[in-house]
Amino acid sequence: MKKVLVLGAGQLARMMQLAGTPLNLDIKAFDVRSGKVVLPIAPHHAYGDLAEGIANADVITAEFEHVAHDVLAECERSGKLYPTSESIKIGGDRRLEKSLLESCNAANAKHHFVNTKEDFDAAISKLSLPIIFKSALEGYDGKGQWRLKSMEQAEQVWLEMAEFISASTTQVKQGIIAERMVPFDREVSLVGVRRVNGDVAVYPLTENHHTNGILSVSLAAPVHSTLQEQAGKVFKALTDKLNYVGVMAIEFFQVGDELLVNEIAPRVHNSGHWTQQGADTCQFENHLRAICDLPLGSTALVRPTAMINIIGEDTIPDNVIAIPSVSLHWYNKSKRAGRKMGHINVSGDTEQQLAERLLALSVYLDEKAFPDLAEFALSLIHI
Amino acid sequence: MKKVLVLGAGQLARMMQLAGTPLNLDIKAFDVRSGKVVLPIAPHHAYGDLAEGIANADVITAEFEHVAHDVLAECERSGKLYPTSESIKIGGDRRLEKSLLESCNAANAKHHFVNTKEDFDAAISKLSLPIIFKSALEGYDGKGQWRLKSMEQAEQVWLEMAEFISASTTQVKQGIIAERMVPFDREVSLVGVRRVNGDVAVYPLTENHHTNGILSVSLAAPVHSTLQEQAGKVFKALTDKLNYVGVMAIEFFQVGDELLVNEIAPRVHNSGHWTQQGADTCQFENHLRAICDLPLGSTALVRPTAMINIIGEDTIPDNVIAIPSVSLHWYNKSKRAGRKMGHINVSGDTEQQLAERLLALSVYLDEKAFPDLAEFALSLIHI
Repeated sequence: MKKVLVLGAGQLARMMQLAGTPLNLDIKAFDVRSGKVVLPIAPHHAYGDLAEGIANADVITAEFEHVAHDVLAECERSGKLYPTSESIKIGGDRRLEKSLLESCNAANAKHHFVNTKEDFDAAISKLSLPIIFKSALEGYDGKGQWRLKSMEQAEQVWLEMAEFISASTTQVKQGIIAERMVPFDREVSLVGVRRVNGDVAVYPLTENHHTNGILSVSLAAPVHSTLQEQAGKVFKALTDKLNYVGVMAIEFFQVGDELLVNEIAPRVHNSGHWTQQGADTCQFENHLRAICDLPLGSTALVRPTAMINIIGEDTIPDNVIAIPSVSLHWYNKSKRAGRKMGHINVSGDTEQQLAERLLALSVYLDEKAFPDLAEFALSLIHI
Repeated sequence: MKKVLVLGAGQLARMMQLAGTPLNLDIKAFDVRSGKVVLPIAPHHAYGDLAEGIANADVITAEFEHVAHDVLAECERSGKLYPTSESIKIGGDRRLEKSLLESCNAANAKHHFVNTKEDFDAAISKLSLPIIFKSALEGYDGKGQWRLKSMEQAEQVWLEMAEFISASTTQVKQGIIAERMVPFDREVSLVGVRRVNGDVAVYPLTENHHTNGILSVSLAAPVHSTLQEQAGKVFKALTDKLNYVGVMAIEFFQVGDELLVNEIAPRVHNSGHWTQQGADTCQFENHLRAICDLPLGSTALVRPTAMINIIGEDTIPDNVIAIPSVSLHWYNKSKRAGRKMGHINVSGDTEQQLAERLLALSVYLDEKAFPDLAEFALSLIHI
């Protein structure tokens, strides 16, 4: 029975445990806040500290990219960490990410690194407005971002950013990436997996919708083969370059028929949660297969499937789970505004049937908590 | 967060925990051997004894029908037990089972109760040979059964049975049911679920194959609507009569276009394991929904799916999980001949594709451990 230690004890570790238990994998998680090793699905009982967790594990992985660098270093020294600390750090620092993309010739938005007022001015003249500025570290779910649409805002934006940089207490020095805002048609992401021997498997591209900067809905359905091929090539290039092992997600902006990489996540990803019901093998199982050096599972789409995030709510009406194919996934977290509390997967034999079920969902769910769902469902219905 | 206590800490409780955790259900199990309450998927840490388990639970259920009657009584007194102890006991005593079937006019094999030599002789003249004798209690997976095909064996069979009855140490008095051996075409089973309010949902009929008296393969595919309707009526009659709550499985002999009830299991059932990958909602989740008084989930078939039991083996070749749609479910049990150690689910977009995948499986799996798989796969392939 192989033993896996996950760095981080949140919902991704929890879903790894649910997916790995049937494979007789013993999944434990290192809770970075308590410093204890726990069972992700029943974290009230502790199984020692990090050193014990590392010693007892056969394989170590991470559920998030902002793991303290000393923890990553300690894990890497054991020779059990997959993917490497280099890969994990890339997901946590947009500067490293951009350098990787450049080194692999992966198309991405024109950008400029900003540390000083001079860099800021240079970014504006190089990229031209509108520009989005993103913190290099710890930025996710829309935090640490500034949009500059006219020069009148420039002074204010720079002051806020300078304040943000100087207030940062990150281990690595904080910085800013300026990116030309791309007028994209939609956001899509590719979740894929790579095994130690270089085998790669990628899931169908997922279309993603955000509400207030947080992913609200992902849709997996049969996709344009050219786009799928393009995304697959980027996945292979990036993961080969890193000698990557495990699941990685790549978020793209689609501009016409072209995909620009927005960001990469060196881990299982929210936009891949639909795979629990919609794919031959879910992303959590495939991540575990990869890091345990087992054959990868098929990533084929079983049927059109959507994932809806439950944000800031800890109950939903019972009627929702009476809708055929609805699968509810709570994370057992205490309620907090803006927090990802769980998600709903729903499938259909056809996209039309899926759209009808999404519309039914939108009727039962509180519009305040799920503001864009009805519109999204209607956009899929072909009359 | 609703708390569920399962009587029995085997693979069925384990799979209930895996299915219930995403619903934020807290699943614990009472291990009848150790007398302790444990987490089914991580049973090394104890959470108190039965009394504490009952006190802490909101709902109590059972994963097997041979629970000691005093334990059932203690649970029932708490008002939290679903289904009732009466229903659970029926699954553990063929005499009660037959009486239920008769009271519901559910077609079943002609039979006679045997306690004495006089009953034995009467059974032979009433039923005529061949007859199968089954112990009333604790008989499962082919144990406690005798076949009488010619009168020359009668004396020997009776001596063995009389010895068996007198050696039995069961709480309730042991007995024998004589049944006319039905020359059936195939064995099928219906897994269904009933909620407190009387709502009922049934899965598609499953075709079952046994090897040495133990279920080896179950196949779920679109079925004959007349048979499905017939089975559904029996399910409704039996569960309404018992005011049953939870999943129940009914095994049938198919004789021409008629279904005869063979036996019932008042619990989630091996022939319903395919629902984990092949149905909109799996049997474990639907059982939990029912006993927690939540809306039942759709029982629709997603695509043709088969379940193959892993018996007496604790490893299988890695190649197996490379076959698309193969999902492996280990129970984390120590190896023992004849023991159910895990199962494999495999699906196909069509029955033909499923058959091809089953054939591939049979190539990789050891023929000694899976003796009938290749033949079964070939029988499904239409050339």
